[in-house]
Amino acid sequence: MRQQNDWKWRDTAIVSLRSPSSLMKLCQSQQFNKDALSVIFRTAREMEDIRPATPESRQLEGRIMSTLFYEPSTRTRLSFESAMARLGGTVLSTESAGEFSSAAKGETLQDTIRTVEGYADVIVLRHFQAGSSMTAASVASIPIINAGDGPGQHPTQALLDVYTIQREIGRLDNLRIGLVGDLANGRTVRSLAYLLSMYEGIKFYFVAPDVVRMQEDIKEFLTGRNVEWEEVDDLAQVAGDVDVLYQTRIQKERFQDRPQDYEAARGKYIIDKETMKILRKDAVIMHPLPRVDEIKPEVDSDPRAAYFRQTKNGLYIRMALLKLALT
Amino acid sequence: MRQQNDWKWRDTAIVSLRSPSSLMKLCQSQQFNKDALSVIFRTAREMEDIRPATPESRQLEGRIMSTLFYEPSTRTRLSFESAMARLGGTVLSTESAGEFSSAAKGETLQDTIRTVEGYADVIVLRHFQAGSSMTAASVASIPIINAGDGPGQHPTQALLDVYTIQREIGRLDNLRIGLVGDLANGRTVRSLAYLLSMYEGIKFYFVAPDVVRMQEDIKEFLTGRNVEWEEVDDLAQVAGDVDVLYQTRIQKERFQDRPQDYEAARGKYIIDKETMKILRKDAVIMHPLPRVDEIKPEVDSDPRAAYFRQTKNGLYIRMALLKLALT
Amino acid sequence: MRQQNDWKWRDTAIVSLRSPSSLMKLCQSQQFNKDALSVIFRTAREMEDIRPATPESRQLEGRIMSTLFYEPSTRTRLSFESAMARLGGTVLSTESAGEFSSAAKGETLQDTIRTVEGYADVIVLRHFQAGSSMTAASVASIPIINAGDGPGQHPTQALLDVYTIQREIGRLDNLRIGLVGDLANGRTVRSLAYLLSMYEGIKFYFVAPDVVRMQEDIKEFLTGRNVEWEEVDDLAQVAGDVDVLYQTRIQKERFQDRPQDYEAARGKYIIDKETMKILRKDAVIMHPLPRVDEIKPEVDSDPRAAYFRQTKNGLYIRMALLKLALT
Repeated sequence: MRQQNDWKWRDTAIVSLRSPSSLMKLCQSQQFNKDALSVIFRTAREMEDIRPATPESRQLEGRIMSTLFYEPSTRTRLSFESAMARLGGTVLSTESAGEFSSAAKGETLQDTIRTVEGYADVIVLRHFQAGSSMTAASVASIPIINAGDGPGQHPTQALLDVYTIQREIGRLDNLRIGLVGDLANGRTVRSLAYLLSMYEGIKFYFVAPDVVRMQEDIKEFLTGRNVEWEEVDDLAQVAGDVDVLYQTRIQKERFQDRPQDYEAARGKYIIDKETMKILRKDAVIMHPLPRVDEIKPEVDSDPRAAYFRQTKNGLYIRMALLKLALT
Repeated sequence: MRQQNDWKWRDTAIVSLRSPSSLMKLCQSQQFNKDALSVIFRTAREMEDIRPATPESRQLEGRIMSTLFYEPSTRTRLSFESAMARLGGTVLSTESAGEFSSAAKGETLQDTIRTVEGYADVIVLRHFQAGSSMTAASVASIPIINAGDGPGQHPTQALLDVYTIQREIGRLDNLRIGLVGDLANGRTVRSLAYLLSMYEGIKFYFVAPDVVRMQEDIKEFLTGRNVEWEEVDDLAQVAGDVDVLYQTRIQKERFQDRPQDYEAARGKYIIDKETMKILRKDAVIMHPLPRVDEIKPEVDSDPRAAYFRQTKNGLYIRMALLKLALT
Repeated sequence: MRQQNDWKWRDTAIVSLRSPSSLMKLCQSQQFNKDALSVIFRTAREMEDIRPATPESRQLEGRIMSTLFYEPSTRTRLSFESAMARLGGTVLSTESAGEFSSAAKGETLQDTIRTVEGYADVIVLRHFQAGSSMTAASVASIPIINAGDGPGQHPTQALLDVYTIQREIGRLDNLRIGLVGDLANGRTVRSLAYLLSMYEGIKFYFVAPDVVRMQEDIKEFLTGRNVEWEEVDDLAQVAGDVDVLYQTRIQKERFQDRPQDYEAARGKYIIDKETMKILRKDAVIMHPLPRVDEIKPEVDSDPRAAYFRQTKNGLYIRMALLKLALT
């Protein structure tokens, strides 16, 4: 048990702050190196086998997780809460912390964290402000897990994406990955590009409408690390070549004053039955969900549609993180 | 245990869809026949005897229920959550799923269900749209329990009403029942009329203000099944004759553009001390709650006021359904 | 165990209503005498030593607490919910009961309580109306704990304040206490004055901006009980003399039509590094939290800054109350 957690103690790239009380700060995808991912994924795989009412299902008995959400995210919250429940832990749930009395009365996030850490053993923080999980972690004496900080990071999503690729394809080296849709605003695809860049023989295809193309910083980052990438207009061409076709939603909320740009972008790259005919037999479709219509429901029953398995993998990843943080 | 659940597997009138994973879809009152009611009520009766910290109180240990509520209904939610807790299970609670990110971003109910079923073992769904529980059940691989779908159905309320009659009166045959108040809009009284029509020797009295009289479809349905019914203007006359006087609230929210109709309707049939003088000694007053002033508080201390026992019976019915769905 | 709870049964000053079912109504600070405080504090001290996954941490297994909050108070709610979790109990959480269907449809608080008591073993009530916990307690057949009723009482806050003084200073007699800030509106400081008046050799200093000075009723009450008090303008003078400096927030929400009064009041008495230089070595700073800027963050790392320990003590007090109410 102790050995398995050793990465928390040794690798400064992963956890920059420590304390005698098994401190963990999970704020950014960049914290993880390959060794850390390997430990997390091995633990997640063990989590898949835990059955109700067994000793393994009670290993966090008496431990308390606070889901402190300053903006609602039902999916992420339920995933964390289910993870804690499946390990026998207890949840204190707060879904719209921002509206609440303390914040409304002018309390700082730091003070809120120092109060809530008295009631819980780990805080899962969702906040609308980038960097807020770092702020929280800087004062907390218990583990903080970033469950999304606005335009910033959503590291557990990034982990479940990579875990899904490993589970579906069987490897993380020598992969061809098509990233499709809103590549400019999607923190998901940016994190994925970052994490996969640590592996060998990765090639990215970027398939995006003009208004939401992949940003320059990621392209430069990949080039700097000798990772192949290519921008392609034709989804069909990419679909026939890749191991993973990762579709994303065009985020309407980013186009508030440009409805015509939104309409142009959203309809451009749709995955449907025709796409599935081109897709290789051993490839998979992924999507961070929620989707609107960028993947047609007719695709759902295809065994290569991996997106509901992907969301389920979020449960195992979060179970693994809670176990690593609390034991 | 297996035997007790057999009705789920044999009777197509009750459960129309099956799967090897003990699938149950509880969407409509019409799903239940007398045998099904008998199993549920026998199980509910057992639930009344479960004490805290006993093996029986842990029979759903490790099982997870998601209360997915698209509109708030504190009473129904707490009843289900208490039921799950009393069997040792865990709850993932969502009280205003409709406001939340996924639905707001355009996700379909089907996609939400396919996500949440990865986190839970049973979903209790409250939705503002009639038929939504059927939609949910059509894609789910875990049991779905309808906790009210807008103007549609609220089958667990119907079950607890019938269970209360059996517990209070001691039988379900040969009953005289007065339904009072808003009979046009109340899904409660419609479901009750449907379910009791399966028993022998039932007679209904309908006592309603003109603007909210019982609808023709139910009258025709009862006539078609040779169930006696009669519309009566005088509450006192009915009160002296019935076994059960079932009062309902005039629903202000249905009269938005007709406030004068609401005022006329709401004051017409009030149950007070005078009514109780007429009511038979072995009869009971029921009400689905919440009430406004259609039953005066002075009635509450009368032992024939069964409405708070009725709401408590909801707990036992929901415990029974969760047990039947998950074991 | 029985012996420890005897105060509930014997002292009419503490619990004015009883029933064979171990009834407890915790509505007002005035209910407590010194013996009751002594039992509660002794129990709270035991609570500090409970570790997860031990038999002591399961003593409320199978018991259900409903947090029925008609206005949000994340801090208080989480504190109660954490307390229940640490004793192995289960929570039914409701954060904005006032918006919900039943209340919106015109249901009285009494009816809501009589419904919820069917689902839970204890109700923790937060309400916007003074006296509502008394109303609730008058109909309930299970314990009711007042978690704040608007401008009225917040007795568990009062208890944790006194407990903190005992834990930090080591005694409750012969204390010099400076109450600082909004003394007119703060129910916290009023309750504290009341409870400490029961002990020997207490002296209060009131340090408040003119617009929010301590009200006459409390001054008269203290004088009537021969408790020394003094109004002082100079915070520094008081800081050098007291055992406890109890700072409070100037409540902006009380100055809605007088923003200039608010600005004048809020900046007048700030605790900062300079104050800490004057404060005695064995004295402490307390604050009910949340704070805005009436204590500068530079003070937080001083060991005499007791306010985060104080909020943590709320957990132990609430554990003690739940244990006393339910066993």
